[in-house]
Amino acid sequence: MATYAVIMAGGIGSRFWPASRKARPKQFLNVFGDATLIQNTVARLQGLVPPERCLIVTHERYVQQTKEQLPAVPEENILAEPISRNTAPCIAYAGAKLQARDKDATMIVLPADHMIQNVQRFHETLHVAIEAAQAPETLVTIGIQPTHPATGYGYIQYDGPSIDEAALDAYPVRTFAEKPDVATAERFIDSGDFLWNSGMFIWRADTIMEQLHTHLPKAYEAFQPVREAADTPEEQEVLHTAFQESPRISIDYGVMERADTVRVVPGDFGWSDVGDWRAVYELRDKDEHGNALEGQVIVHDSSRNYVQSDDDRLVVLVGMHDTVVVETDDALLVCKRESTQQVKNVVEYLHAHQLDEYT
Amino acid sequence: MATYAVIMAGGIGSRFWPASRKARPKQFLNVFGDATLIQNTVARLQGLVPPERCLIVTHERYVQQTKEQLPAVPEENILAEPISRNTAPCIAYAGAKLQARDKDATMIVLPADHMIQNVQRFHETLHVAIEAAQAPETLVTIGIQPTHPATGYGYIQYDGPSIDEAALDAYPVRTFAEKPDVATAERFIDSGDFLWNSGMFIWRADTIMEQLHTHLPKAYEAFQPVREAADTPEEQEVLHTAFQESPRISIDYGVMERADTVRVVPGDFGWSDVGDWRAVYELRDKDEHGNALEGQVIVHDSSRNYVQSDDDRLVVLVGMHDTVVVETDDALLVCKRESTQQVKNVVEYLHAHQLDEYT
Repeated sequence: MATYAVIMAGGIGSRFWPASRKARPKQFLNVFGDATLIQNTVARLQGLVPPERCLIVTHERYVQQTKEQLPAVPEENILAEPISRNTAPCIAYAGAKLQARDKDATMIVLPADHMIQNVQRFHETLHVAIEAAQAPETLVTIGIQPTHPATGYGYIQYDGPSIDEAALDAYPVRTFAEKPDVATAERFIDSGDFLWNSGMFIWRADTIMEQLHTHLPKAYEAFQPVREAADTPEEQEVLHTAFQESPRISIDYGVMERADTVRVVPGDFGWSDVGDWRAVYELRDKDEHGNALEGQVIVHDSSRNYVQSDDDRLVVLVGMHDTVVVETDDALLVCKRESTQQVKNVVEYLHAHQLDEYT
Repeated sequence: MATYAVIMAGGIGSRFWPASRKARPKQFLNVFGDATLIQNTVARLQGLVPPERCLIVTHERYVQQTKEQLPAVPEENILAEPISRNTAPCIAYAGAKLQARDKDATMIVLPADHMIQNVQRFHETLHVAIEAAQAPETLVTIGIQPTHPATGYGYIQYDGPSIDEAALDAYPVRTFAEKPDVATAERFIDSGDFLWNSGMFIWRADTIMEQLHTHLPKAYEAFQPVREAADTPEEQEVLHTAFQESPRISIDYGVMERADTVRVVPGDFGWSDVGDWRAVYELRDKDEHGNALEGQVIVHDSSRNYVQSDDDRLVVLVGMHDTVVVETDDALLVCKRESTQQVKNVVEYLHAHQLDEYT
């Protein structure tokens, strides 16, 4: 039995504007100064999944960047989506390919743009999940132990001891909950049996394809020709049709919430989805005034700021606090740190006002 | 009797960083979108002093910019200081030149970088001052009716009715006061007989030269060779020595505070010294959220900001309030509006840290 990683790298991450652009999405950015998020995602699998068994699913416009950033990943492992259709078609594609290559494959599905601080603990968690995923019809996900009543994540309620006493084990999932309001999120936290939905899944390729067959038969059927043509010159010919025929739906809605046997392993390994600039600020080293500064930056009477300057410009802050300043060649964002979630609205505004050159 | 304007344009205005630079000082900037400050200073004299009788005193490095910005001012009226030595030598130079050209000249000395909203009232005020300056040994200044207990200006106390009842007249000056602390400024305002020192002076050329002779004899002596060589090929030869020998002192300290017959005309014509970005914000038109935006700027959930972008960059503010954002080709300032006075400290810092390329 071999384990494969399927890294989903088709998103744009518009809350990272102006650094993230349609041509340069978040997962290809060097957010923390060492490597890009996708490079780190592959690197932290070392010892568990070698690059030759990593598959990257991305939009075809990002194939070249993916090759350049991940030279150790074989070219045939870079799966190009002709159109973006949410996660269910993406997973059906990867599942079909893996079934064709290795009928005994187990898949670890990971977002390309998350950050994990405790890699050893992450591996231990995945080992438990991989083992649990060998049981018949079983889909496994990782649920993050919540640190606060976040409203930006979905939640997973499980059957088992409360989080403080939970073991590193695969517990039955009771319900998936949508992103809650604050009051609901607080209730979830208080109840002690809710975890954050991390978007990480572990299952056998044959299991997920069976479950797609049961719960999303159109997606399953759409990708059967891909499975048959996998790794042949015909694959590209049938791929576009498969994506067009497949319903545009997430794997969470399409399968996880409908499946009978879903298990969750509580994860506690310093996880962040690096969801916005505030998250980057929180993850970065800071000076004695709480400033995290990247580039040529001078601060005067200023504290708890995040500044990132791409180019040779001098950036000066005077009397500023709790502010995010990000500049690129053609755009500048100045944002209150508590408002960084709203940056995605700016990108929508740019699209709506014929300012696509800045998106 | 002819009236001349002597416009002092040798400063840098470092509180206007990053727009103002050593190579492009504040007076040469187009701050309000119509013309540069020095162009406005000359233009608002129309009807009182024609450009042919305007003299511009500036550092020699700014002579070319002055010519380009003020084509109606004759070249021989652009007086180049070889070194910057505060206002007393500057005025001695202009006084010596004017004495040589017109022994009956009256001088209006004006800073190049102020803003005046009510030009008609400004002219009326100057007419009163010009008339008062014809009396023997009399130096006249304009005192601005204060609107708040500012700590950034010197004050002038006069003998006469309290400001509310004062006529447009030249009142005897009792004292000049340095920039006060807040408590002192409040006391000044409450007393009703203090005005802001505007740095505008009106006197006959022979009067100021006599007063220099009495109170700053070294400055007077230094510029006698300039007077003798005025408008001849020898002028440049003696000029450097004159500036070197003249004491480095302001006309306020050197003459005004020591002279016996000083009068002040209260001015109420919508004056601003445009001293920092906050002052620019206050003078600019604003949208319904109190934002004054120059360039390609998008604001979201933001109010009372001043944004100025020189180039094609898109600037986006999210959740920001009471903030100044000024960007140029090579530098960006983000400054709390209440901290704009501190911008000059940044320029000092740049000088002290071998970052002169940004000054």
